[in-house]
Amino acid sequence: MQRILASEVAAHAGKTVSVSGWLHKKRLLGGLTFINVRDRSGIVQAVVEDKAEVEKLRGLQIGTVLTVTGKAVAEERAPGGAELHHPTLEITTPVTHEPPIEIDKPLGHKSENLDTLFDNRVIGLRNLQEAAVFKIQAAITDALRKYFKDNDFTEIRTPKLLAEPTEGGAEVFQMDYFGKTATLAQSPQFYKQIMVGVFERVFEIAPVYRAEPSATTRHMTEYISVDAEMGFISLSELEVFLSGLLNAAVDAAWDQYEPELKRWNATKPVLPKTIPSMTMAEIHEKYSKATGENTVGEKDLRPDEERWICEYAKKNLKSEALFVSEWPASEMKFYHKANDKNPEIADRVDLLFRGVEIVTASMRENQYEVVIKQLKELAKGDPNDPGYAALLNAMKYGMPAHGGFGLGLERLTQKIVGLNNVKEAALFPRDINRLAP
Amino acid sequence: MQRILASEVAAHAGKTVSVSGWLHKKRLLGGLTFINVRDRSGIVQAVVEDKAEVEKLRGLQIGTVLTVTGKAVAEERAPGGAELHHPTLEITTPVTHEPPIEIDKPLGHKSENLDTLFDNRVIGLRNLQEAAVFKIQAAITDALRKYFKDNDFTEIRTPKLLAEPTEGGAEVFQMDYFGKTATLAQSPQFYKQIMVGVFERVFEIAPVYRAEPSATTRHMTEYISVDAEMGFISLSELEVFLSGLLNAAVDAAWDQYEPELKRWNATKPVLPKTIPSMTMAEIHEKYSKATGENTVGEKDLRPDEERWICEYAKKNLKSEALFVSEWPASEMKFYHKANDKNPEIADRVDLLFRGVEIVTASMRENQYEVVIKQLKELAKGDPNDPGYAALLNAMKYGMPAHGGFGLGLERLTQKIVGLNNVKEAALFPRDINRLAP
Repeated sequence: MQRILASEVAAHAGKTVSVSGWLHKKRLLGGLTFINVRDRSGIVQAVVEDKAEVEKLRGLQIGTVLTVTGKAVAEERAPGGAELHHPTLEITTPVTHEPPIEIDKPLGHKSENLDTLFDNRVIGLRNLQEAAVFKIQAAITDALRKYFKDNDFTEIRTPKLLAEPTEGGAEVFQMDYFGKTATLAQSPQFYKQIMVGVFERVFEIAPVYRAEPSATTRHMTEYISVDAEMGFISLSELEVFLSGLLNAAVDAAWDQYEPELKRWNATKPVLPKTIPSMTMAEIHEKYSKATGENTVGEKDLRPDEERWICEYAKKNLKSEALFVSEWPASEMKFYHKANDKNPEIADRVDLLFRGVEIVTASMRENQYEVVIKQLKELAKGDPNDPGYAALLNAMKYGMPAHGGFGLGLERLTQKIVGLNNVKEAALFPRDINRLAP
Repeated sequence: MQRILASEVAAHAGKTVSVSGWLHKKRLLGGLTFINVRDRSGIVQAVVEDKAEVEKLRGLQIGTVLTVTGKAVAEERAPGGAELHHPTLEITTPVTHEPPIEIDKPLGHKSENLDTLFDNRVIGLRNLQEAAVFKIQAAITDALRKYFKDNDFTEIRTPKLLAEPTEGGAEVFQMDYFGKTATLAQSPQFYKQIMVGVFERVFEIAPVYRAEPSATTRHMTEYISVDAEMGFISLSELEVFLSGLLNAAVDAAWDQYEPELKRWNATKPVLPKTIPSMTMAEIHEKYSKATGENTVGEKDLRPDEERWICEYAKKNLKSEALFVSEWPASEMKFYHKANDKNPEIADRVDLLFRGVEIVTASMRENQYEVVIKQLKELAKGDPNDPGYAALLNAMKYGMPAHGGFGLGLERLTQKIVGLNNVKEAALFPRDINRLAP
């Protein structure tokens, strides 16, 4: 008999149908054996009454692969609104080992349990609530890509094996490369800028690597970076673009996965079409006044300050996201651009969302001579260093005003679902202590 | 004045418009200066007559970033069907360095010129024909993703930093990972199988790494692998799926980029909806008979044989793609599945396309005890080796019949565009000799 999906059973009410999947749950109730079968579409319940059929399940564990053929009956209380009656079971792959965890119960996500969660990830992901995180992540990814494409971006693929660290710094992984040394890319920064010279608007969604030497709730050694770069734009246009992008991601997740998000106790982010913006000085002032701490004049936001100003923006600006503008130029990377009118500030905005920075966006310096000057002064770099050749060539042979941003896919997922640790939003997270599974 | 795109000029005929982009070409003709301006949409031509405007271009090189404001005039012979008359030029980023290559002329793609091509890649990609390869690649990527999603696949992201090589073998990159050793993933093989246990159908499009110790036209050390895996299927269903997938990719490229493909002298692949299939033994027999070589009984196809049988299939089966079935079981990897009826052959098909193998697809062994047996016998592996723990756990706790495949995105692009070397289909290719740009 042709297989149908669990989600299609209700539409076949009255007919005999076959569903194939995993034994997801088994319980005895009033002399009846209820089983839940899971396939790619979800869950269907079957009521096993016939003794011979019940007997087939004896000794078999959750995870057993089987085909259940029975009569589809509408049943409001069953998952999907239907169940299978008087089924016959065909056990295709029996499982006799008891699973290491109970996959139908909510898995522990307390910080002290995360190692157990990740150690058991291979089976733990079969829990529907866990799996939903990654369904939501895939929907977010789609929404981001669609938004990029609707705005004329070209998707690119840039190398992660580099001769030199892109942005200097100690946090790089290095390896032997046929007698030379190769470095894993920390970001596609130089390449996406170079590709603005080709396609004007580009994006890439791909892994990047940071040899982050400590285990935090905010960092992984490998994560998926959503990178974009556009030519012929200004910082305020970048803000407009990012407002639209974040809204698109949030809407996609909630439009497609509202029940799953609610099961995670997530709330739909309050997000105006145009995300409000505040200067760093304003934030310092407000925070200092409200808390008694004094951050006035500081060159970055403290983590507590990020959380506080997000609460403030939610309450007073009706937005759970907030742009932070007017960063001090002294904190610029060499490829960043200082403001034309006030060289003390950088043309940079960060986007805070639910208490943390999720995006750093900035304009890049596009004048060859100025980039070289900044490279020497800000990065103490040598323009003849071959690691800079590609980026400098792009500038030398003509680059428009351009800017872009990077966004961690896991962090965005984390904030939309409401997870405490970014690693919970990675299928198989990597940090200083974890390379498996 | 609001910027419009080069491709929009024709629609504004009669009006004064502004286009911003790169000076792409400059020539004197009958006392007039013709310039081509390139933006993300393509090229528009402007006829610069006014002396003061011509003067602005003096000393400026190709790549100069400028805004051209002039009257849009329909002109059949101009690119895009329109040109700008009596323009005024605003030079926003002057370029005074002569580009290392002439970007408006076809770049050399002969094998002896490839190093020059790649050395100059940053600027060379601004050549429209070069850039088109990657527009086509992005269209192919979209088509593959759409096909996966239309068939209920979930997009996943699996780690490329592993504790152990996934499939053994010497061709792995290894690095220090906080005092331990990490390996770069050669494929997401184990993870995609594991994820069948979660989502039933999964795909990933992401980089993989092979420490390929020789420079060939077919291999890179980093490439984009299109990986898919599906549960509850058979080998013949995999063939059906792959027929549809290849057709979708080819159709997308030709529907969207026919003029660009023709400029590469590409021809549209002859591809039936159902790609024909032939056993390896049949191919050996046909090839031996036709060429006088004797390959009967060999366990693989020779490269010459792949080319020959593709020519044969094109001529006799009206297909430029061909499945090769009935591979010897002795060549199986430990996670592959032998045929139930004839254990001498593996449940594997390769897909040849235009002379080379572009896909290896196979069923995987899903029975825990059999996988362990094969691991010991075929890979001389130790089931207690932690590198196998994740995959073996997936099998231990229930996996259906499943199979999948890997496909190199650059190789597919290469074959559709008709490039000689797979590296020409990578923006910034990597091989034993090349880590830059």
